[in-house]
Amino acid sequence: MRVVIVGSVALDTIRTPGAVRADLLGGSASYASLAARFFARPAIVAVVGDDFPAADWETLAGAGVDLAGVERASGPTFRWDGSYDASLKERVTLRTEVGVFGAFRPVLPEPVRGAEALLLGNIDPALQEGVLAQMPAVALSAIDTMNYWIGSAREALLAVLPRVHLLLLNDEEARELTGEADLVRASLAALRLGAEVIVIKRGPNGVTACGPWGWLALPALPLESVVDPTGAGDAFAGGLVGCLAGRDWRRRDAFACALAAGTALASLSVEAFGVAGLARADARAVAERCRMLGELCRFDPPETR
Amino acid sequence: MRVVIVGSVALDTIRTPGAVRADLLGGSASYASLAARFFARPAIVAVVGDDFPAADWETLAGAGVDLAGVERASGPTFRWDGSYDASLKERVTLRTEVGVFGAFRPVLPEPVRGAEALLLGNIDPALQEGVLAQMPAVALSAIDTMNYWIGSAREALLAVLPRVHLLLLNDEEARELTGEADLVRASLAALRLGAEVIVIKRGPNGVTACGPWGWLALPALPLESVVDPTGAGDAFAGGLVGCLAGRDWRRRDAFACALAAGTALASLSVEAFGVAGLARADARAVAERCRMLGELCRFDPPETR
Repeated sequence: MRVVIVGSVALDTIRTPGAVRADLLGGSASYASLAARFFARPAIVAVVGDDFPAADWETLAGAGVDLAGVERASGPTFRWDGSYDASLKERVTLRTEVGVFGAFRPVLPEPVRGAEALLLGNIDPALQEGVLAQMPAVALSAIDTMNYWIGSAREALLAVLPRVHLLLLNDEEARELTGEADLVRASLAALRLGAEVIVIKRGPNGVTACGPWGWLALPALPLESVVDPTGAGDAFAGGLVGCLAGRDWRRRDAFACALAAGTALASLSVEAFGVAGLARADARAVAERCRMLGELCRFDPPETR
Repeated sequence: MRVVIVGSVALDTIRTPGAVRADLLGGSASYASLAARFFARPAIVAVVGDDFPAADWETLAGAGVDLAGVERASGPTFRWDGSYDASLKERVTLRTEVGVFGAFRPVLPEPVRGAEALLLGNIDPALQEGVLAQMPAVALSAIDTMNYWIGSAREALLAVLPRVHLLLLNDEEARELTGEADLVRASLAALRLGAEVIVIKRGPNGVTACGPWGWLALPALPLESVVDPTGAGDAFAGGLVGCLAGRDWRRRDAFACALAAGTALASLSVEAFGVAGLARADARAVAERCRMLGELCRFDPPETR
């Protein structure tokens, strides 16, 4: 099974109260592909500059990520510099250098257009529409994080939503997109905008999904040592969409299983800086997280007297 | 199986953006007992004034709640008047009239001292200690919500914690009690204060528990029509402790099952003003909520490739 992931490949500087790490491999497509690989073969469609380190290329390629769709352009790679507060829950962007990503026009290599799933990362909705046109019959198309575009390109975004199956949002995006403060109502309002499934990624509060099978919800794994939350939502999306590639996402059990996969990958991602947690994980670690998640929330129904 | 519930029986005025309801039967013991009754016979230990309506007495007695431990004192019943914001997530207390509750000294009738479980509601920790002394060998003792006392009677509270099995907190209380902003760390810090299980009630974000079996977590049921969140935490606590009465709470499966019971009862409670949602519920409605909760978070582990 194959999943095409369109998004950013970046070099990040990440500042936490405990440490500063510069020039880390990052970007939504890096996180999502390193998570998706446990369930499907990921192919990235992205752009990097001529400064992109060979070692980072090898991190992705060595993990089995198909990089045929990654353009090497002349100029600097996309860079992001951000700083977290003591709780690791709030962050501020100190600097964004768009570099070659500013002129990115995603073109999917012919061989990947037959993939079973497509994950569209945080890019201009007009570009997302262009990608969808290149895979008109894809069995599952998903759009992830789009905070910036909800404000700045709302019309284009509303035009693309009826064309995708799955919309991933975080709490804040769900509220901003729909104007509903309550997340249950926001999910239902978002469904009316066109996608068939709304997934709300809630970080340490878990995840909810609303679709043809009704509601699904899972708690997050309780983690004592979160090191770097960057990319957790992308790792979640990669695990989710990778796990659904080639499966019928309109079936409740397939979707619930994929939500568990996403939850497991997000938990592995945040335990190290950048993509290190995902890159070092193996199938056994992923299976172990899924087992832990099952132990966390499995219950037998109580008997009333 | 029997559960003793020590707390308040009150008359509430509840204001939401949609409606105002005055003189509703309320108080932690009312909510908790009407929830616990589905799993064990609840006995309330509380005090009411000579103005307490016969109809409210009948609501509790008619639901099978043992009221032998409810003292009728001369003076006004405890009254609370509160107002919710549009989200129904924030509330302000407009007025509290303690009335006869101010001189409340709980004395447990002899017949209920052999009950299998004890739920101590939001009263002075010194009084909680006095109740524990009346049931020194109870199989399960639980202390619920205590926001006020964390600030005003911290030493007395810290003295009582090593004497109970189960401590129930909400997010804010967990943070205030332990000084830890992160709820995973706050749970572990609270464990070190003496109780053997820490349950954090998180409203629409679900519930987590940390105890001898490790971690448990359940999502909340997604509700489209929350009418009045008053008492949801008490209903949760009543369902949880009622379900554990006579069962071995040190067993993971028993505790997970009881967390589901609490979650189900809390969801029934918030769908009507005051205790009406709990009072009208029957065993079938409780079982149906538990089934919905299972459907919400049940999953088969994903297979990696």
